[in-house]
Amino acid sequence: MKYGIAIFPSKPIQDEANAYRKRYDSHYALIPPHITLKESFDADDDHINDLIVELKHIANATKPFSININKVSTFAPVTNTIYFKVEQTPELTELQKKMHEGKFENNMTHPFVPHITIAQNLLDDEYSDVFGTLNMSTFQFEDKIDRFQLQYQLDNGSWTVYETFVFGKEHI
Amino acid sequence: MKYGIAIFPSKPIQDEANAYRKRYDSHYALIPPHITLKESFDADDDHINDLIVELKHIANATKPFSININKVSTFAPVTNTIYFKVEQTPELTELQKKMHEGKFENNMTHPFVPHITIAQNLLDDEYSDVFGTLNMSTFQFEDKIDRFQLQYQLDNGSWTVYETFVFGKEHI
Repeated sequence: MKYGIAIFPSKPIQDEANAYRKRYDSHYALIPPHITLKESFDADDDHINDLIVELKHIANATKPFSININKVSTFAPVTNTIYFKVEQTPELTELQKKMHEGKFENNMTHPFVPHITIAQNLLDDEYSDVFGTLNMSTFQFEDKIDRFQLQYQLDNGSWTVYETFVFGKEHI
Repeated sequence: MKYGIAIFPSKPIQDEANAYRKRYDSHYALIPPHITLKESFDADDDHINDLIVELKHIANATKPFSININKVSTFAPVTNTIYFKVEQTPELTELQKKMHEGKFENNMTHPFVPHITIAQNLLDDEYSDVFGTLNMSTFQFEDKIDRFQLQYQLDNGSWTVYETFVFGKEHI
C-alpha cells in the first residue's frame, strides 16, 4: 500500500488554499490542503507498523511550533506548481529529516521546500496569468502545528488518513 | 467549527465503494467512504478539547471488532440513498451510543443504521436502475475495526481528519 505523511494546516488556511485549488489544482478532490513531509512510499503491514512506532517516537520528541506564510512561490521552470510558501523553520526541517533516515527509506527526490500547493498542472498561459496575479497579492498566515498525519492512497488517487500523531501525546 | 466522527473501513472496501460513488454519489470528492458514528455537530475549541478526552476514554474502553457487509440496502422512500449495509453488532451500537450521551450532544435525527453510502441524490429513474442492479449483486466483505476518526468540515463541504483514536492505545 502507498503511504504518505503530511501536516494539515488549520481551517482558515485550508479554506483560503481551497479557494484557489478549486479552480487551479487538479488534485483538489484527492486530499485537503497540506504540507507534505514525506512523499508517497510503499510499505506492507509489518513495515508500516514498525514505522508507526517510529512516528510516535518522533511525535513525542517534537514540541508544537509556529509556521508562517507570507507569499506564494512556484517550482517553475521545473513544474508550474504554485504554492503558499511556508517559511523554513528548524522544527520543520528536523521533523522532515527524521522521516527520511533510520528505519525510513530516504525517498526524497528533491530538497525539502515546505509548501501548500494551490495550483498545478496548469497550461502555460494559465500558469503565467495565475502566478502573475497571485505574486502581487499579499498573504499572511501564522499557524500553530501540533500534529502530523499518516495517510494511505486509494485506487482512485485520493488519500485517507490512517493515523494522527500529536506532539508529546503518543502512547507507545 | 463543524465536526463529525466516522470509521474508515480498510482500503479494499473503500476502493469498491468508490467505484460506485464516483458515478452515483454527489459527495464522492468530499470524504472517503466511511461509516458515520456521529453526524455533523458544532463545537468551539474548548468544547472539542473536552470531547477529545472523552473520545480517548471511549477508544481505550473499546476492543477491536469485526464488521460484515453482505448486501446493499436503501433509505428509500425517505431518501434514495443506497449503501453497503454493515451488519449491526453490539460493539458498533455501544460505540455509537457513547458518542450521544454524557458530554456529547445527542444530535441523532434517526435511529443508528451502520452503513457506507455508495449513492445519493440520484434522480428517481437513475435510483431505480442502480438499486435494481446492485440489489441483485453479491457483496461480501469482512473487516477489522480498531479506530475511529474525528473530522472537521471545510467551507467547501469537504472533511479533514483532526485526530485518530485507536482502540486501547490512547494516551490520556
